[in-house]
Amino acid sequence: MANPEAPIFRQLFESESSTYTYLLADKNTKEAVIIDPVKETLDRDVKFVKELGLNLKIAVNTHCHADHVTGTGLMKKQIQGLKSAISKHSGASADIQLSEGDNITFGKHCLIVRETPGHTDGCITLVLGDKSMAFTGDALLIRGCGRTDFQQGSAERLYKSIHEVVFKLPEDCLLYPAHDYKGQTVTTVGEERKYNPRLTKNLEEFVKIMDNLNLPKPKKIDIAVPANLLCGLQD
Amino acid sequence: MANPEAPIFRQLFESESSTYTYLLADKNTKEAVIIDPVKETLDRDVKFVKELGLNLKIAVNTHCHADHVTGTGLMKKQIQGLKSAISKHSGASADIQLSEGDNITFGKHCLIVRETPGHTDGCITLVLGDKSMAFTGDALLIRGCGRTDFQQGSAERLYKSIHEVVFKLPEDCLLYPAHDYKGQTVTTVGEERKYNPRLTKNLEEFVKIMDNLNLPKPKKIDIAVPANLLCGLQD
Repeated sequence: MANPEAPIFRQLFESESSTYTYLLADKNTKEAVIIDPVKETLDRDVKFVKELGLNLKIAVNTHCHADHVTGTGLMKKQIQGLKSAISKHSGASADIQLSEGDNITFGKHCLIVRETPGHTDGCITLVLGDKSMAFTGDALLIRGCGRTDFQQGSAERLYKSIHEVVFKLPEDCLLYPAHDYKGQTVTTVGEERKYNPRLTKNLEEFVKIMDNLNLPKPKKIDIAVPANLLCGLQD
Repeated sequence: MANPEAPIFRQLFESESSTYTYLLADKNTKEAVIIDPVKETLDRDVKFVKELGLNLKIAVNTHCHADHVTGTGLMKKQIQGLKSAISKHSGASADIQLSEGDNITFGKHCLIVRETPGHTDGCITLVLGDKSMAFTGDALLIRGCGRTDFQQGSAERLYKSIHEVVFKLPEDCLLYPAHDYKGQTVTTVGEERKYNPRLTKNLEEFVKIMDNLNLPKPKKIDIAVPANLLCGLQD
């Protein structure tokens, strides 16, 4: 028997930007939330929402992405009543501006907004009400973390966000990131506290690592960021 | 709170052949089973097994794959006591030759072997004891199914396997396939019974669809099949 208390949950992958989109829904009311939809997989995701008979209420972005264009704006045109949501600190427009502690409810479930800045100013982690899972965006990745060298990035702030928010969640809380580049789909608080090669270091060492990544500029940043400030609809 | 009754469960992806590998383990005893490991991701998966402190007992292949080389043989060299398993109808060598109804136990959990031939003679679906999830290999894919034009493939047998075994599982049983090419990670019995574009057809139409797919020969078949008949170790 499947756990009758758990929400419907789907993890979806967009391979060009290696982005995970998440869909959560209440089994009874069919009220649903989508996290980080991508423009390229809009048709797949809308079809899926319709097939499952879901009432998609909110499309929430964990932050203003630099590597892909969000599907939020176009999804709103296809799904009546859908509202967009993003952190008030993101600088992006959306129907709902989220703050620390806000609840995004769907049926009997809810996602709690926790501010986890550092990759960007407006990064949030969304924690399921029962703390069985959390969606960390680009703050914490599996055995990694988001870069901090553009878009108001700050290694110090990221370190604090992870240690004071994400790592304080229960040990077996499942963590779902916005990206993975190695075919991994999920991790736990306990695992990352033990094995994250960056976040297990002290603050000083962490900042040094982050300052010396020398990553290339994301290919799509000049298109993605302006578009994502407007739900992916630059016009 | 995470469900204390559920096993540890991880879905892992190998992007070259778009193969999913699955790891299941008992939370208390740490006894574990891996399904369809891939040679290319061996290091990632062995590292992961060690980090989680798992006692990996069995590496089971859902069938003799034609599109990638299994990691089973090499994994056995790195993990002491690990045994390989595959259907007795596969023609492949392995420590354990599986038959319909066999149980693969790990701690208090078990996977039940159901024979679902059609893609190949030796295809099995592995059903978790509580029927909350099943691993369908290449028999049933998300909104699709495995091809039936080589390796003893038979559209008639595949149709029968899906309808008489997989579709008889509970409506909300999660189905995890061996592959997905569109970024989808999971489906359910209910969804596929409703929306699978091939298996919702009658047998005659299904056979016609399968006979006219005109797919190219898998790139790796001449390397993969001989290797996979020997746990991925051709020498």
